[in-house]
Amino acid sequence: MTDPSPGPEHAKAPGFSEADRAGLYKAIFNRRDVRGQFLPDPVPEAVLARLLTAAHFAPSVGFMQPWSFVVVTDPAVKARVHGDFEAANEEAALRFEGARREAYRKLRLQGIREAPVNLCITCDRDRAGPVVLGRTHIPTMDLYSTVCAVQNLWLAARAEGLGVGWVSILHPRRLQDILGIPQRVVPVAYLCLGFVSHFLDRPELESAGWRTRLPLDQLIHFDGWGGDGGGAPTLLDEVRQVMADMEGGGPASPG
Amino acid sequence: MTDPSPGPEHAKAPGFSEADRAGLYKAIFNRRDVRGQFLPDPVPEAVLARLLTAAHFAPSVGFMQPWSFVVVTDPAVKARVHGDFEAANEEAALRFEGARREAYRKLRLQGIREAPVNLCITCDRDRAGPVVLGRTHIPTMDLYSTVCAVQNLWLAARAEGLGVGWVSILHPRRLQDILGIPQRVVPVAYLCLGFVSHFLDRPELESAGWRTRLPLDQLIHFDGWGGDGGGAPTLLDEVRQVMADMEGGGPASPG
Repeated sequence: MTDPSPGPEHAKAPGFSEADRAGLYKAIFNRRDVRGQFLPDPVPEAVLARLLTAAHFAPSVGFMQPWSFVVVTDPAVKARVHGDFEAANEEAALRFEGARREAYRKLRLQGIREAPVNLCITCDRDRAGPVVLGRTHIPTMDLYSTVCAVQNLWLAARAEGLGVGWVSILHPRRLQDILGIPQRVVPVAYLCLGFVSHFLDRPELESAGWRTRLPLDQLIHFDGWGGDGGGAPTLLDEVRQVMADMEGGGPASPG
Repeated sequence: MTDPSPGPEHAKAPGFSEADRAGLYKAIFNRRDVRGQFLPDPVPEAVLARLLTAAHFAPSVGFMQPWSFVVVTDPAVKARVHGDFEAANEEAALRFEGARREAYRKLRLQGIREAPVNLCITCDRDRAGPVVLGRTHIPTMDLYSTVCAVQNLWLAARAEGLGVGWVSILHPRRLQDILGIPQRVVPVAYLCLGFVSHFLDRPELESAGWRTRLPLDQLIHFDGWGGDGGGAPTLLDEVRQVMADMEGGGPASPG
């Protein structure tokens, strides 16, 4: 099984073509958090099955696979969740001051009722007993595994033409009540899913001037926090080049 | 911008070809948590730059982009992290009983010193001030955003032929000390990265008999926990079919 000729050719991953890599990067760079562009068209069961399978093949601590999936299509259930969003969102608005509060109120932050499918991805903290390989020193690892499943599903959805929005302005206990989720099970993500009229070119919060994209080269440290890599590391030049290519409207894939 | 003809053709995502989708699914289904197959070959800076860019384009709550990246190549730093792993791993082994403890001790759980690059992905809880859009009701959302960045990077690495292993058997405070990470910044993931001799067909913990792959169709609920979708939902048949195709050694992509 060992490749007899390690070297630069490893950069051409065995089994992965340029086209494969381009497809992956396209999904990564064109994925959006969708709130307002949902269409009512039903999501085919075969497509949803592929998305759930993608989630199920996420990494998980101790191969725990702690996730479950609550598929919500009943308008009455969506309405209850939406009601909780409205209450939470009003509380959230009051946390901001002045102009920021007004800007907050103008943002559209969910598509719970419009999206044909809502999906709650949960984490059963007891799924593999009290002692879990790899969770002994970082007890949140099972929650993190569940988030990996969310991201797999999100990318697969983008490649299938489905928008996904993660609604986090909810009271988790209330969501647990609405969906009848047991105490030991954490509702990690509440997602809205559906086909969309279009995908936005940039994140909505970036376009709305809420926050800007940070310069990636300033987020990289070498061998310790604040380490500059001994002058001018080539890596930072490469990062600036990839980011510049993307800002310049170049190919969606930076590869 | 609105697509004038909503309908089944949306399943063919605009801009995404069958080949694009296949590339994404291939990365998702062939990604592994790598511990023992690292090669010493250096990781080209251009490849590492693409991986970090993939991480930087993860979704983040309130467009917070809370992540930073500590790239570790210094053998002395790796040795200190490895020392902490050994201490934590001994504590972890004692949490298991009897045969399970013996089985645990036989597992290889990290490649800290062998992997040419170690990468700590962190979350700065203060990056966007105390009140963050979308984090008002679920305070861990910024940690979850950081995990999305980890998963983006992990998938991109797989497509570039690089193995990634997430080492979670560490004392987070000790890791913070070793890398000089400020108190407000959480080291979410410590990853080992490098080219590999080969990728395993299945997760190591599955092959070793530690745990089995769960049947996905039993993890799906409809409109509430325990909801059976009113009999025999087509979705479950579709899920069983996708899973059966994969078990049958079919195409890596279920699409």
